[in-house]
Amino acid sequence: MTTDTFLKEKAVTFFLDGQEVHLAGIAKGSGMIKPNMATMLGFILTDAEIDPRSLQKALKNAVDLSFNRVTVDGDTSTNDMVLLLANGKRGKGVINEKHPDFFIFQEALNRVCRDLAKDIARDGEGATKFINVFVQKAKNESEARTVAFTVAESPLVKTAFFGEDPNWGRIMAAVGRSGILIQPERINITINGVPFVEEGMGTQKMTRNELRSVVQSKELEILIDLGLGDASFNVWTCDFSYDYVKINSHYS
Amino acid sequence: MTTDTFLKEKAVTFFLDGQEVHLAGIAKGSGMIKPNMATMLGFILTDAEIDPRSLQKALKNAVDLSFNRVTVDGDTSTNDMVLLLANGKRGKGVINEKHPDFFIFQEALNRVCRDLAKDIARDGEGATKFINVFVQKAKNESEARTVAFTVAESPLVKTAFFGEDPNWGRIMAAVGRSGILIQPERINITINGVPFVEEGMGTQKMTRNELRSVVQSKELEILIDLGLGDASFNVWTCDFSYDYVKINSHYS
Repeated sequence: MTTDTFLKEKAVTFFLDGQEVHLAGIAKGSGMIKPNMATMLGFILTDAEIDPRSLQKALKNAVDLSFNRVTVDGDTSTNDMVLLLANGKRGKGVINEKHPDFFIFQEALNRVCRDLAKDIARDGEGATKFINVFVQKAKNESEARTVAFTVAESPLVKTAFFGEDPNWGRIMAAVGRSGILIQPERINITINGVPFVEEGMGTQKMTRNELRSVVQSKELEILIDLGLGDASFNVWTCDFSYDYVKINSHYS
Repeated sequence: MTTDTFLKEKAVTFFLDGQEVHLAGIAKGSGMIKPNMATMLGFILTDAEIDPRSLQKALKNAVDLSFNRVTVDGDTSTNDMVLLLANGKRGKGVINEKHPDFFIFQEALNRVCRDLAKDIARDGEGATKFINVFVQKAKNESEARTVAFTVAESPLVKTAFFGEDPNWGRIMAAVGRSGILIQPERINITINGVPFVEEGMGTQKMTRNELRSVVQSKELEILIDLGLGDASFNVWTCDFSYDYVKINSHYS
């Protein structure tokens, strides 16, 4: 059974060592989505000619920046796969990670994987909103990651967004329970660029109706600034709706 | 705003140092319920005469065995409180933890706290079922606790129970992603005493319809035997329904 509602595909064209090459990917998955990696399948094809070890390394980098940053319900897959196949048809010679153009290949691969991963979150079971939780100025990446996943998986945060309730208190509460040491008065939160929390308190600049209109958007960028260091991490997710319950309570 | 749907109260009478004494408690709370402790209030009164330090210690023990074992959605409270007041009216003298009857007081306090805690899970937002997740034969208590909370908070496990779907695969998947080292072939799972998983595989002894009738019960005891050691831990929780989403998406 699949609960995907749309096709997830992405293709890019770029130049490698003076040669036009292509990279295309398709993916499926919409529930039980959480690193490592997700109940998902990804197939990525390229006609570039890349050394197998360098190809594997590039894929691992790209997956860490994409499929490993998606969560729908916090439940992790029991099986998942991303395959990257390079047939070398367009190569003038094998390229490895030492080649000056290798970063161009990596960037193209990152783009394809990122777009597929975002589509998986966008198509999360029952999703009505696509949410990017971006945590910055954390002490280190591990702490940024912990906060981002805790917020992205909080049922209270996710149901608030489904209800289009500008409930910044639930975001603060999730940050607070994430397990890292925070200084509440240093925290600033914006959603789609609009301030919600300033120095740990609800903003005085906006009315509740103004905040409500912000969270009515179908795409939400939650920026959580911890004010502690230089590290950041982001997670893509979706809201938590009646349909999520419906899909998963009537599975069989 | 309160989302409690019923009164949570418990009273017991017992003998301490030859004197009849009483202990009674009330509590409120139904959402954002997770140790430490929960968005809850608890007030417990006794007419026994107990040394204040011993009273505090007894309360801490009782809370660890009760309110700290409840979860509804994994979201933790930003504020909670349990108060235990002893007015000493029925005392013939101050009792402390060295007194041979102190364990009787501790047991009475445990009972009151446990019943109140179970009622909080039973009244979880939108709950249609009360679920006790009991993990046994873990390597140590910390691992048993990790598995119990992971299963109790898995949205896929909770929606399956709401839908009365005997989906033991979701329980196994939650155990598997909990982060502890498991040996799947050693795992046995029963629900209300009926085998669901034997040696890591779905039971062959019961038909799917028989398993379905088990999970139609309003009270579920999920026993997860990891087959690794001697430690155990349990968590009380509830299922995940449309009403949970309704209550939390239309909060304000």
